[in-house]
Amino acid sequence: MIIIMKNNATKEQVAHVVKKIKEAGLDVNVDQGSEHVVIGVKGDTRKIATDGFNAYEGVERSVKISKSYKLTSREFHPQDTVVDVDGVKIGDGSFVTMAGPCSIEGLAQIRETARMAKVGGAQILRGGAFKPRTSPYAFQGLEEEGLKYIRQAADELDMKVITEVMDESHIEMVAAYSDILQIGARNMQNYKLLQAVGKTGKPIGLKRGISGTIDEWLNAAEYIAVQDKSPVIFIERGIRTYEPMTRNTFDLSAVPLIKKLSHFPIIVDPSHGTGVWDLVAPMARAGVAAGADGMIVEIHPDPANAWSDGQQSLNEKTYLKMMQEVDILVDAMKKIKQIEA
Amino acid sequence: MIIIMKNNATKEQVAHVVKKIKEAGLDVNVDQGSEHVVIGVKGDTRKIATDGFNAYEGVERSVKISKSYKLTSREFHPQDTVVDVDGVKIGDGSFVTMAGPCSIEGLAQIRETARMAKVGGAQILRGGAFKPRTSPYAFQGLEEEGLKYIRQAADELDMKVITEVMDESHIEMVAAYSDILQIGARNMQNYKLLQAVGKTGKPIGLKRGISGTIDEWLNAAEYIAVQDKSPVIFIERGIRTYEPMTRNTFDLSAVPLIKKLSHFPIIVDPSHGTGVWDLVAPMARAGVAAGADGMIVEIHPDPANAWSDGQQSLNEKTYLKMMQEVDILVDAMKKIKQIEA
Amino acid sequence: MIIIMKNNATKEQVAHVVKKIKEAGLDVNVDQGSEHVVIGVKGDTRKIATDGFNAYEGVERSVKISKSYKLTSREFHPQDTVVDVDGVKIGDGSFVTMAGPCSIEGLAQIRETARMAKVGGAQILRGGAFKPRTSPYAFQGLEEEGLKYIRQAADELDMKVITEVMDESHIEMVAAYSDILQIGARNMQNYKLLQAVGKTGKPIGLKRGISGTIDEWLNAAEYIAVQDKSPVIFIERGIRTYEPMTRNTFDLSAVPLIKKLSHFPIIVDPSHGTGVWDLVAPMARAGVAAGADGMIVEIHPDPANAWSDGQQSLNEKTYLKMMQEVDILVDAMKKIKQIEA
Amino acid sequence: MIIIMKNNATKEQVAHVVKKIKEAGLDVNVDQGSEHVVIGVKGDTRKIATDGFNAYEGVERSVKISKSYKLTSREFHPQDTVVDVDGVKIGDGSFVTMAGPCSIEGLAQIRETARMAKVGGAQILRGGAFKPRTSPYAFQGLEEEGLKYIRQAADELDMKVITEVMDESHIEMVAAYSDILQIGARNMQNYKLLQAVGKTGKPIGLKRGISGTIDEWLNAAEYIAVQDKSPVIFIERGIRTYEPMTRNTFDLSAVPLIKKLSHFPIIVDPSHGTGVWDLVAPMARAGVAAGADGMIVEIHPDPANAWSDGQQSLNEKTYLKMMQEVDILVDAMKKIKQIEA
Repeated sequence: MIIIMKNNATKEQVAHVVKKIKEAGLDVNVDQGSEHVVIGVKGDTRKIATDGFNAYEGVERSVKISKSYKLTSREFHPQDTVVDVDGVKIGDGSFVTMAGPCSIEGLAQIRETARMAKVGGAQILRGGAFKPRTSPYAFQGLEEEGLKYIRQAADELDMKVITEVMDESHIEMVAAYSDILQIGARNMQNYKLLQAVGKTGKPIGLKRGISGTIDEWLNAAEYIAVQDKSPVIFIERGIRTYEPMTRNTFDLSAVPLIKKLSHFPIIVDPSHGTGVWDLVAPMARAGVAAGADGMIVEIHPDPANAWSDGQQSLNEKTYLKMMQEVDILVDAMKKIKQIEA
Repeated sequence: MIIIMKNNATKEQVAHVVKKIKEAGLDVNVDQGSEHVVIGVKGDTRKIATDGFNAYEGVERSVKISKSYKLTSREFHPQDTVVDVDGVKIGDGSFVTMAGPCSIEGLAQIRETARMAKVGGAQILRGGAFKPRTSPYAFQGLEEEGLKYIRQAADELDMKVITEVMDESHIEMVAAYSDILQIGARNMQNYKLLQAVGKTGKPIGLKRGISGTIDEWLNAAEYIAVQDKSPVIFIERGIRTYEPMTRNTFDLSAVPLIKKLSHFPIIVDPSHGTGVWDLVAPMARAGVAAGADGMIVEIHPDPANAWSDGQQSLNEKTYLKMMQEVDILVDAMKKIKQIEA
Repeated sequence: MIIIMKNNATKEQVAHVVKKIKEAGLDVNVDQGSEHVVIGVKGDTRKIATDGFNAYEGVERSVKISKSYKLTSREFHPQDTVVDVDGVKIGDGSFVTMAGPCSIEGLAQIRETARMAKVGGAQILRGGAFKPRTSPYAFQGLEEEGLKYIRQAADELDMKVITEVMDESHIEMVAAYSDILQIGARNMQNYKLLQAVGKTGKPIGLKRGISGTIDEWLNAAEYIAVQDKSPVIFIERGIRTYEPMTRNTFDLSAVPLIKKLSHFPIIVDPSHGTGVWDLVAPMARAGVAAGADGMIVEIHPDPANAWSDGQQSLNEKTYLKMMQEVDILVDAMKKIKQIEA
Repeated sequence: MIIIMKNNATKEQVAHVVKKIKEAGLDVNVDQGSEHVVIGVKGDTRKIATDGFNAYEGVERSVKISKSYKLTSREFHPQDTVVDVDGVKIGDGSFVTMAGPCSIEGLAQIRETARMAKVGGAQILRGGAFKPRTSPYAFQGLEEEGLKYIRQAADELDMKVITEVMDESHIEMVAAYSDILQIGARNMQNYKLLQAVGKTGKPIGLKRGISGTIDEWLNAAEYIAVQDKSPVIFIERGIRTYEPMTRNTFDLSAVPLIKKLSHFPIIVDPSHGTGVWDLVAPMARAGVAAGADGMIVEIHPDPANAWSDGQQSLNEKTYLKMMQEVDILVDAMKKIKQIEA
């Protein structure tokens, strides 16, 4: 941590800040710059409330140097973590597709969607049983009934299941049916939920928050990682901006950034990342090329009659075409990785 | 709801969309504009998944007309709701101040802060017992012990208490000590929590989400309002933008907007709205002038040694000065309201 | 400037960065922190391209310490600059109102609007003769004819004129008719235009860019200040965010921030800051309370028939009511300033 | 255009709005919805100031239906426009690379960079002679001397030139040396400049504004298109958000969106889109996969000593490696296009 003093800070003010830092058990390095005194703070500042240093007289601002997350960082764990979802590997250099409807609407619907998903090459079936909706009057999900349906549909085709858990009290129930527990964008900083799912041992699909920064996302993963049980799969799903033509602004730079800063795998969600069905395939392709370990995508036998997110869902024809394209790019990326090796 | 067809949509595509809308039990009005066919959808679209209409062939986009919230709206409930916090009225034309530390750090600290708060004119004591922090290594709050301390400190000075509840499993505990239950910015769309606190009958202080739109905020309030027990107090605390000099961009336009769209009161949080202690007083003044029903502000006997949020906390001297200024503006606003009447 | 090395940077990498900094004529201070080596760079880094230091092997990132603007800063010029607009003082503790239509539509319209403006207490008449519009098919302004009309209307009532100059080739023409030259939000970083208007000696009303940060805004002012002729009047007009209910998010925290960082005055523009006529009065009041030196506001004799910005313009009745409110708050702020003194 | 009345609007208010619309020469369709009266406005609203309709009593808001641009739209011009840059085709299904330094620093530097660029496969040389910098004290470019150098360096290797024009008064000079005129992000809405470059007949590289929406970008292109001389090449370079780890948030969804809405080609700028050199290659790959017609990228023989943008520039080794990867993906995209055909 570095504390930058105001250019007119007095010697007494500098001395007072130094004294207080030392009282907190940290060491200092005082440097007289051309315009500002700069105080370097040494020691583990993670557990100390350092924000308050900004409140001392004469302080202009402070800058954090160390990352506040550790177990999640590549600095701490240089080699890639490969997540094993009951035999399906994520982060091993392959590209894994998770596909399915936004909402589980019934057994027939999820079975039919699973069939589509499997034909296209998806290995993991997605589908929501608990649906957080902006309006309390909108459809909120089939809950446990939905979980049973998706498990059955997946098992019939030897697929794995990913589904969202929204509340600590549901973890046990959801974990009984699902192979990956997904944390939704609205819960990225629901720390109690993160700690609880982190204890299950199941892989956690951690969506980036609606306006979550990458640093916050890495810290959210740390809440899971400190439980030392469950591996994390980051899911980039776009962030909120002022561009109204897409539901979110899909931030694919997050893929190489997360790869650089963390050892956990990252997949992309071009459905929420765009919110518009005919942008999904180009953005899925871009995700492959950016280096993602997989994707999660919304498909539906009849998007126009989907109970939610119909506008961003692919039907069988558009989904299969996208998967053809994705396969070609996955092959191209293998060549690229061979060059690198 | 209005559906705008592409300018090259065929008659068959229009007819198909019309047919599907009618099958959903809604009525239509088809209007041939100069460049686009526009289909007006009539009937209560709140409970129907209308997003999917965008997935029909030939549809360019759709526009919602009706508000998706109802009980929260001023259209539905034209007169102001005055919230009674055990005798302290919010929304009756007065300006109520809630003050206290970010974190409850101990009995002595909260007592001393309560004394300061009371001297300045605050009627409600704030303080956090559960602290959601970006890093898992930072201080996370004193939990129930903290709740006991804040209740005691408030009772000794005949003040009321507002504190945050972060998890459904804590509601009963927090409600035993607090007069207002606060929902934090990270939980604005934690709908299960909203439904649960809405059943307590306690007033709910609902912070705007970190990047929450006003429409989402009103819908979040609706999750509480449909329980028909607890009134809502909106708390504007700034939204995330690209301006780095402030912790958030304090959106005071939200004050007259919420007043126009809802009957529930709104207060402002200039501490989180700015994140910088010397901007708090000017923004508190601006909040009064914008027409807020009150404010919530962070104060601390010794901000530089606060366990959290020290950089945005006022000390006794700066707090008392701010309250003098606020009082003068509250008087000025009374004159303005008399002119209007 | 501070350079933070990666935690696994080698001694050779550190030595190489140090060598390069010294070659650039700057001095260094190398500090071995607990996890990272931190290199402090000393000397005037304003004229050196320091971005490149990030490109050296082993560098994680760098942090600027010194402000890149100087003449605009309060550090350099501690006392307030009072701008004298041909007798009307801005920044002397008074609150100056500039009012008028978005577009000058004709002589009769601008005369009638000037009359309204004057009755309400405005001393400066605003109105656009060159209108930058998103679509090339929209009305683009009356140009020089409009400038003649606004000058005549202002002179008849002993008012001053502020109007926008959009292009270097128009400066002489606009300066012949206007007392203040306004730089629009889209031109905040049109540096050639800033340099040119800075040579006129006329006060420059510098609007904040559509997504301009406060640091960029201060640097834009520096382009004017280095010409050493024209004083600057900052105009806060809101920034672009994802909140769709207002045209911009009005960032009133900019008022005390600019006051803290610069000696030039700042006024607010609640018309563009909200984009909705019935939010203008509350935000004008909030601007007074935040400490602004004045405001600029759009009014029109018949907003519904205005050629531009009708939705955010006040008519005579709503304008006069707002000015009554503003006057009451200006009086209240005088009391507050007396306490401070 | 559609006007949504308030749910409590009176019949008189509706009638008044209808009367005013008809007076403006437009036709109407009035539809009584379940909660709101909705007035459809028919006719060409492009040249009429329709904003003012929001100012009538009883109006809640209005929604635009028609696009305000026309010549730029794919609706108006369904087939792709292929831009011919003196023999180099952009938009014909190939992928064109433009590479070079941020700033032209001298003849030797631009020659050496041109050599590197050519080896990697770039056909067009980029380089800035006029540099708009945030601070007036930073290096501002070599101006005409720089233009001579880049032209010479390109001619020696049979490359084409793209460089930025920042001011109307420079157009003739820049056009004498450059094959493509680039409009920088800060000038996307400098309409006078857009109109002027549109008359040159040279292809215009139009960067997206710093916070420009796609709709504004298309309208900016329309200012060029109405001159009926110069074709447009859209350049996606990221937009400003709250994510601090990248200089901008690179919005690759813009690629398929522009392809859908316009007939002009679009290229991507992964250098400004990320601001970090080691993110450039993955984002260049993602740009290819998203369907871009080319890219513009910053390279430098010695990035650490570049006079500007060193942190985002590739050196020879990293650039050549990226181009290998890009070539593999370009081949993969050809296969994908064959499937589609």
